[in-house]
Amino acid sequence: MADLTFRVKAHSENPTKTIAKARGFEVVIDEPVEMGGTNAGPNPIEYLLATLAGCLNVMGHTIAKEMNMNLNGLKINISGILNPDKFSGVDTDERAGLKQINVEIIPDTDADEATLEKWLATIENRCPVKDNLSNPTPVHISIK
Amino acid sequence: MADLTFRVKAHSENPTKTIAKARGFEVVIDEPVEMGGTNAGPNPIEYLLATLAGCLNVMGHTIAKEMNMNLNGLKINISGILNPDKFSGVDTDERAGLKQINVEIIPDTDADEATLEKWLATIENRCPVKDNLSNPTPVHISIK
Repeated sequence: MADLTFRVKAHSENPTKTIAKARGFEVVIDEPVEMGGTNAGPNPIEYLLATLAGCLNVMGHTIAKEMNMNLNGLKINISGILNPDKFSGVDTDERAGLKQINVEIIPDTDADEATLEKWLATIENRCPVKDNLSNPTPVHISIK
Repeated sequence: MADLTFRVKAHSENPTKTIAKARGFEVVIDEPVEMGGTNAGPNPIEYLLATLAGCLNVMGHTIAKEMNMNLNGLKINISGILNPDKFSGVDTDERAGLKQINVEIIPDTDADEATLEKWLATIENRCPVKDNLSNPTPVHISIK
């Protein structure tokens, strides 16, 4: 299949609040007041975890269907651990972003354990957002 | 500084639509109709690009302030290229996720080119979401 291109156009409403537009949708990103923001929406790291949940849901259902596995729904709990030193400008060996992401999937299903293991392995192999987090992606940034 | 933990709790409303909750906020993720979805919100890849924009905005303003660089605002255009074969289940050498992300930052500033180059290099070094996309992050997934 041919490559797909996804596009987002964003602008700052203030130093922490960003409005990002994708097709007809508007995404409001901000920082909480205790991080110096105006708390108009989730912060970037929360969106990063939310979009992983969204991708796992789509892939979970797609792959269950392929496997003829009964799946009535899913709950997904995600946590991510980040040390704030690097983005705050402290001299540190810590990385800037999340150093660990933990995901718990709670499927509403009657599938047995072996089926669920195969299902999860296939999700992990084919989920785009999981891939972009687990593996390096070239990000080219230029100033116009 | 101590590590921070970010948390998101999500559930599927249907096979493509996910509601993710972060603090008091709700994020609605879906797929467009042509991707088999119900188009209730941006899709995971669009959110991934939007959250990168949000993070670049916060870091852009934070670092401009540190550098005493005048920054009235920012526009950010992001595109990402993805081949749909892997997530669709086609046998392929393509990766599952975005293989390239291109970002154009349009700052409203009177800073000179050398200052802008230093500004961008510092953003790239310290932006958490940029780090999580450019470098591998351990993602541990379990079924409960």
